[in-house]
Amino acid sequence: MFAAESLVKTLLAQDVEVCFTNPGTSEMHMVAALDRNPDMQAVLCLFEGVATGAADAYARMSAKPACTLLHLGPGLANGLANLHNARRAHAPVVNIVGDHARDHLKLDAPLTSDIEGFCAPVSRWTGRVSDPSQVSAMAIEAVRQAYGPEPGVASLILPADCAWSDQEPDILPKAELPTRESISGNWLAETAAKLKTAKNPILYLGDLACQEVGLHAAGRIAKLLDCRVIMETFASRVSRGSNRFSATRLSYFGEAALEDMKDCDLLVIAGSKPPVSFFAYPEVDSELTPQGAEVVMLGGVKTDSAAGLTELADLLECPAEPDLAERAKAPELDRDQPLNPGFVGLSLLRHMPDGSVICDDATTSGLGVFPWIENGPDHEWLCLTGGAIGSGMPQAVGAAMACPDQQVFALCGDGAAAYTCQAMWTQAREKQNVINVVFANHSYLILNFELDRVGAGTPGPAAQAMLDLSNPKMDWVALGTGFGVPSVLTKTAGEFDDALVHALATPGPHLIVAEI
Amino acid sequence: MFAAESLVKTLLAQDVEVCFTNPGTSEMHMVAALDRNPDMQAVLCLFEGVATGAADAYARMSAKPACTLLHLGPGLANGLANLHNARRAHAPVVNIVGDHARDHLKLDAPLTSDIEGFCAPVSRWTGRVSDPSQVSAMAIEAVRQAYGPEPGVASLILPADCAWSDQEPDILPKAELPTRESISGNWLAETAAKLKTAKNPILYLGDLACQEVGLHAAGRIAKLLDCRVIMETFASRVSRGSNRFSATRLSYFGEAALEDMKDCDLLVIAGSKPPVSFFAYPEVDSELTPQGAEVVMLGGVKTDSAAGLTELADLLECPAEPDLAERAKAPELDRDQPLNPGFVGLSLLRHMPDGSVICDDATTSGLGVFPWIENGPDHEWLCLTGGAIGSGMPQAVGAAMACPDQQVFALCGDGAAAYTCQAMWTQAREKQNVINVVFANHSYLILNFELDRVGAGTPGPAAQAMLDLSNPKMDWVALGTGFGVPSVLTKTAGEFDDALVHALATPGPHLIVAEI
Repeated sequence: MFAAESLVKTLLAQDVEVCFTNPGTSEMHMVAALDRNPDMQAVLCLFEGVATGAADAYARMSAKPACTLLHLGPGLANGLANLHNARRAHAPVVNIVGDHARDHLKLDAPLTSDIEGFCAPVSRWTGRVSDPSQVSAMAIEAVRQAYGPEPGVASLILPADCAWSDQEPDILPKAELPTRESISGNWLAETAAKLKTAKNPILYLGDLACQEVGLHAAGRIAKLLDCRVIMETFASRVSRGSNRFSATRLSYFGEAALEDMKDCDLLVIAGSKPPVSFFAYPEVDSELTPQGAEVVMLGGVKTDSAAGLTELADLLECPAEPDLAERAKAPELDRDQPLNPGFVGLSLLRHMPDGSVICDDATTSGLGVFPWIENGPDHEWLCLTGGAIGSGMPQAVGAAMACPDQQVFALCGDGAAAYTCQAMWTQAREKQNVINVVFANHSYLILNFELDRVGAGTPGPAAQAMLDLSNPKMDWVALGTGFGVPSVLTKTAGEFDDALVHALATPGPHLIVAEI
Repeated sequence: MFAAESLVKTLLAQDVEVCFTNPGTSEMHMVAALDRNPDMQAVLCLFEGVATGAADAYARMSAKPACTLLHLGPGLANGLANLHNARRAHAPVVNIVGDHARDHLKLDAPLTSDIEGFCAPVSRWTGRVSDPSQVSAMAIEAVRQAYGPEPGVASLILPADCAWSDQEPDILPKAELPTRESISGNWLAETAAKLKTAKNPILYLGDLACQEVGLHAAGRIAKLLDCRVIMETFASRVSRGSNRFSATRLSYFGEAALEDMKDCDLLVIAGSKPPVSFFAYPEVDSELTPQGAEVVMLGGVKTDSAAGLTELADLLECPAEPDLAERAKAPELDRDQPLNPGFVGLSLLRHMPDGSVICDDATTSGLGVFPWIENGPDHEWLCLTGGAIGSGMPQAVGAAMACPDQQVFALCGDGAAAYTCQAMWTQAREKQNVINVVFANHSYLILNFELDRVGAGTPGPAAQAMLDLSNPKMDWVALGTGFGVPSVLTKTAGEFDDALVHALATPGPHLIVAEI
């Protein structure tokens, strides 16, 4: 047995069961170890950003970490953007990075780099195996650190000679894992008292508070107090559909967000922190806490905000059930209308199965789909938490691994999809039930708005060209087909609807190009 | 005028004339500044790894930096792997990274990250503009740092409010730029004396010493002393063809490399450092200096090793011209043979124009092409200096910007091409004369060798699957077409030869898939 095998067996003992990987020479003993331990599902990705995006979504959907296996500093570097999203999603990930053998490092061979340096900005913990005898203990520490209490990325660097050594350690048993902190009874009571006396309180939710249990509790409180419930613009995972209480999604642009929260005198925050705008703009305040509102942090991301909200609702003696909207009925489809994101939302409302998972990497178009299915089939909506586009198709890979019996969607802008379209190959390889929707507007559309908002003046031809993806237009049907995914172009509401019905009825991945 | 415009004008004054970019909201004033200063050519890339790979090759071919323009930490992160290659190539790059406005940073908005932390492992210098009045001075410092004396990546972080400020500074005039250090006369004399008395000396070359001037000098010395001249396995840029003296490329695997240098008693190193193996292997020494050989560092990458070799040759009173091989004659093409990398090399020998630039990202297949054109048309061969695959197609973008009148080739393994195939879109957009060759062996072939060499045992089905790209096979003709590049599949020597002739005769980019 190699020490690498101890690592895999230790991870399995901690319920880490999936490895998203693109390995290289320094990881070959890990590959051999995966070969001998088929309980660990190894998922090959054509690019490391696919592996890390998959690990992010796997964690969001299963509330436990997958591991990655990446090839030294450059392989890690390719995965950093989606690890940034995972960090912002508070998603537990055990990020394993191979390195040169210990004696080789001092020689500064071509692939040598400061791996700890690359890890630090995205990791809540980084460790390096410095002796094969540490492998099992370090693996457990990485898993523990990934769990939190604020979950995130724990990076473990494994030198090749510590993987290939036959001095493997004993495999340590399952460890006690950190859990979110609970909110004290005193603090709950104080918050309840403030809520009762406030004229116009708002519950502001992020993290666990946006999932089923948290929203249920927030809805109970809203029913008692007749107050607004607002959630982060880019929450990690939102439970939605007619059986879930709906929170209002905070508007993206600051002035609209302030309008959402107008007249608020008490902002109670669960699973988040005081709202701020995504970007700064000249002469505009970035802090979005309404003027005059008292801010009460019920609990941030280290806390179990869902349990906290439930206790708060009980303490307030709220009704047992929130008011839910009626299941939305889809209006008649005007089949010949040119396609737009709203029609995609309407088709999802018509056909999407309960339990679907939607990975949103579609910026402007995602906002157009979002409202249509608010009271439709139950689903989980994963947001672009860190703003690093190229998340959608990789996340779909991970969500499908976590939820093999659920339908997964990736909603992608064409600009975003171009970042990590290699993910479709893994979807095809693993025969995943993923429907990728690429909104082809042939533009970085959001930047056309932003160019104006930041006051950079009227764009001339060179500036316009830098926001334009129409020269040449990408042929997404060709790209999807090239990666092994059946692909179809749709231009009208009816064409999209038909394509969606076909894709849902046909197992395996699909790409529907929505020309808008 | 915005301060961003001062930055662009300053860079232009320092002869930085090309910007490879994928901008976002925080870079919109830089976009506006590029719009108003069309002398700076702005090249849009669909992914930051394309932008940084292009900047690397642009620098290798023009010996001056381009700049990048990347979107905060995640945009930079996507470009780090090719910046790692640039670092290892000693290629000057001015790496501009936008950041949030200064007041916005403390709010920890979703895209906020430790940009300095991401920069450090790839940069020889990182600076942050902390006031708009510094923009011009900081831009000059970034250019100076990129030049060296050991050229490399200089990263300049530009907060959005320092770009949008109308308190723009004066634009500073062209600064004196660092140049490589020269080698002292004493040291040249000592080295010459040692070379004269050595029984079996080897000149070992990297960096500038592998380009035209350095090789010419090395060839003169070799003619006088009848000694071996060997170059790094992965030199930044090698001048080749029948009008250039040929150095032997050091073998990739250590045991073969030691065989290349057998019986050497003096290793004179110019533009490099003592050779080491790419990876470590169990029970194998990674240091490749032949046992018993004295090592003399004529000069490393901080020095002008080409000038140093020329002075050394003069001091030794070497003949004025090296011995050159005769121009290779292409053997008859056996058109019906199944294609292999050798046939690709043969077709290049038959048809490649003088002055071509070859960006090699093809690992095993590149090694098969390399010998065929050694004494063929003059060309420049850019190696994968840092081992971060996904360099070839992006480098071709940059080489074509630097050398618009020369034919550029990207030789890519299919595994490598899958990393950054988005580069083809920029080639199409810019109508570049790039011929991409993808060697489709549907495998990470090199890893099949490595798995065996590292002693990881006989691969079982799961390990084999992790090195295999045939499930599904990527359809490269579809992928190239999808990104707007005319693409063709070839399976025999004759089909490839015909496709090459056609591509050379037809302006714009092409993809030839070499099914091997």
